[in-house]
Amino acid sequence: MKKIINDPNAVVTEMLLGLSKSNPSLYYSEGLEVISRRRMGDKVGVVTGGGSGHEPAHAGYVGRGMLDAAVCGHIFSSPSPDRIIEGLRRADTGHGVLLVLKNYSGDLMNFELATEMVEPEGIVVDKVVVRDDVAVPESTYSTGRRGIAGTFFIHKVAGAAAEAGLPLPEVKAAAQKAIDGLRSMGMAMTPCILPAVGKAGFHLADDEVEIGMGIHGEPGVSREKILPAKALAERLLDHIFDDLDYAGSDVALLVNGLGGTPLMELYILYNEVEQILRQKGVRIYRPYVGNYMTSLEMMGCSISLLKLDDQLKAFIDAPCDTPGHKQF
Amino acid sequence: MKKIINDPNAVVTEMLLGLSKSNPSLYYSEGLEVISRRRMGDKVGVVTGGGSGHEPAHAGYVGRGMLDAAVCGHIFSSPSPDRIIEGLRRADTGHGVLLVLKNYSGDLMNFELATEMVEPEGIVVDKVVVRDDVAVPESTYSTGRRGIAGTFFIHKVAGAAAEAGLPLPEVKAAAQKAIDGLRSMGMAMTPCILPAVGKAGFHLADDEVEIGMGIHGEPGVSREKILPAKALAERLLDHIFDDLDYAGSDVALLVNGLGGTPLMELYILYNEVEQILRQKGVRIYRPYVGNYMTSLEMMGCSISLLKLDDQLKAFIDAPCDTPGHKQF
Repeated sequence: MKKIINDPNAVVTEMLLGLSKSNPSLYYSEGLEVISRRRMGDKVGVVTGGGSGHEPAHAGYVGRGMLDAAVCGHIFSSPSPDRIIEGLRRADTGHGVLLVLKNYSGDLMNFELATEMVEPEGIVVDKVVVRDDVAVPESTYSTGRRGIAGTFFIHKVAGAAAEAGLPLPEVKAAAQKAIDGLRSMGMAMTPCILPAVGKAGFHLADDEVEIGMGIHGEPGVSREKILPAKALAERLLDHIFDDLDYAGSDVALLVNGLGGTPLMELYILYNEVEQILRQKGVRIYRPYVGNYMTSLEMMGCSISLLKLDDQLKAFIDAPCDTPGHKQF
Repeated sequence: MKKIINDPNAVVTEMLLGLSKSNPSLYYSEGLEVISRRRMGDKVGVVTGGGSGHEPAHAGYVGRGMLDAAVCGHIFSSPSPDRIIEGLRRADTGHGVLLVLKNYSGDLMNFELATEMVEPEGIVVDKVVVRDDVAVPESTYSTGRRGIAGTFFIHKVAGAAAEAGLPLPEVKAAAQKAIDGLRSMGMAMTPCILPAVGKAGFHLADDEVEIGMGIHGEPGVSREKILPAKALAERLLDHIFDDLDYAGSDVALLVNGLGGTPLMELYILYNEVEQILRQKGVRIYRPYVGNYMTSLEMMGCSISLLKLDDQLKAFIDAPCDTPGHKQF
């Protein structure tokens, strides 16, 4: 294992120290592994969380126009309720909190527990659950579809809605509308290595990829020979369009890298995706290309499409200022 | 070789198509592999270039407040003079052009040739050469020190100076002052694979790193057992401070990833660097953490320090809007 770390069991703490020191507008609740905004104004709080190892998600999306707090678990592990309670307290200014969760059983259970525990304090909490991954109907850590990189868009939409001063039910409604029109599909080429484990959790042959693999290395749809970028784009988009036909729609598009894939390859993939979507009559209203939700050093990618109406366009276009994503 | 590509010989073209399609404010001179701003205003042009494979450098730094054009060669190969001429023509609005070059012999030769060829057109060209890498005094592709990730700061400074309306000699003077106070030192953990070659150019054992390796895999200072993050930070900073003592200075700091290293590890490294610099009496005026200048999928990192006075602080703080870096 080759990693720039000290103690494999301290990686999350040391990462969050580095993140908060290099971004003075962020507050780090040390020991509780929560990153939150020092000043968030008088508005609905937007909180997310989950296992670490997906950087810049989730703590890197805390800031103006996106999240108010991110609750970080160990790598690929759900955060415990005490941590989540800290996140909820930090993000509540009396207007309630919207949780944006990815559909993993551990996350849902722990966030539910924490929600019940802060209710006596008068903190109103509601939630939306992202299930954007069309690869598999059930998975290792989820009942129903998994939440993957498209969750970035829900952070953006909910964050912009809250920043605009909308009340909790309307922030939730906007986020839910976005979720309803969101689909993703990914592919992995290499495994990642958990620092505390020290070796890869699975093996792929030198010419093999796994279509539909999850962001924690959960099984996908099939293993097959590596495809050219054009065929890969077709393959992933076919899966998505089989589930939701975006023809005629305006979309936000995310071509996401899983961490180890060079940016060059993501732009090559974007070039193919753009041509296919044009042929299908889909208008790319706003594209995003980069490492938005990763799996440590895993090589691979995912494609996410978000259907946009005028309200969602405004939220996608709204400025935001976070370590992991900035928009003017 | 596992890459998301089509034709190994077309990767630069297809990447630049993807980059320009996903950033409509950028113009792509197809066939000449130049990315430039569609609208740059009436000011000195700032142009860079070099081999591809370092994304988001260099084409990803074209935009308001940074570069006006980037001239892209094949992977790790200098661009030919005809391409550079296109870049110079695109960036000149009658106020002249400053070239920001990294110190590699091929780049210097081709940019010099192109400069001579556009002089009859009345385009005034001057240049600065970045030699920030303190690892080795001479290297495979350079006479004297190599230019590496610290070059990002020179793009930022020169771009901000030009955007502020300074004339060419003053833009050059600001960039040269920045270069004089800029030092970098890196480390590689894994090789990268050139698409057209298909296999790694060198081998490192499972527990081995190379201190001071260049961004094209050129030899560094020594191969040794992998170090903890804290020892690595000390090691790299010691090399830098042996060359230029930053004690008492305000600095811009870049903790850069070479492409394959997870963002988590860069933040862990930042946390160590921050502590060491504090002990040394160095004030981090503005930190940058991320993949700013990469070597395809190479794992590893570099640290760059830029000494700041009031003028350079203003240029570092100035807003910019490029695909690879945005600042408010």
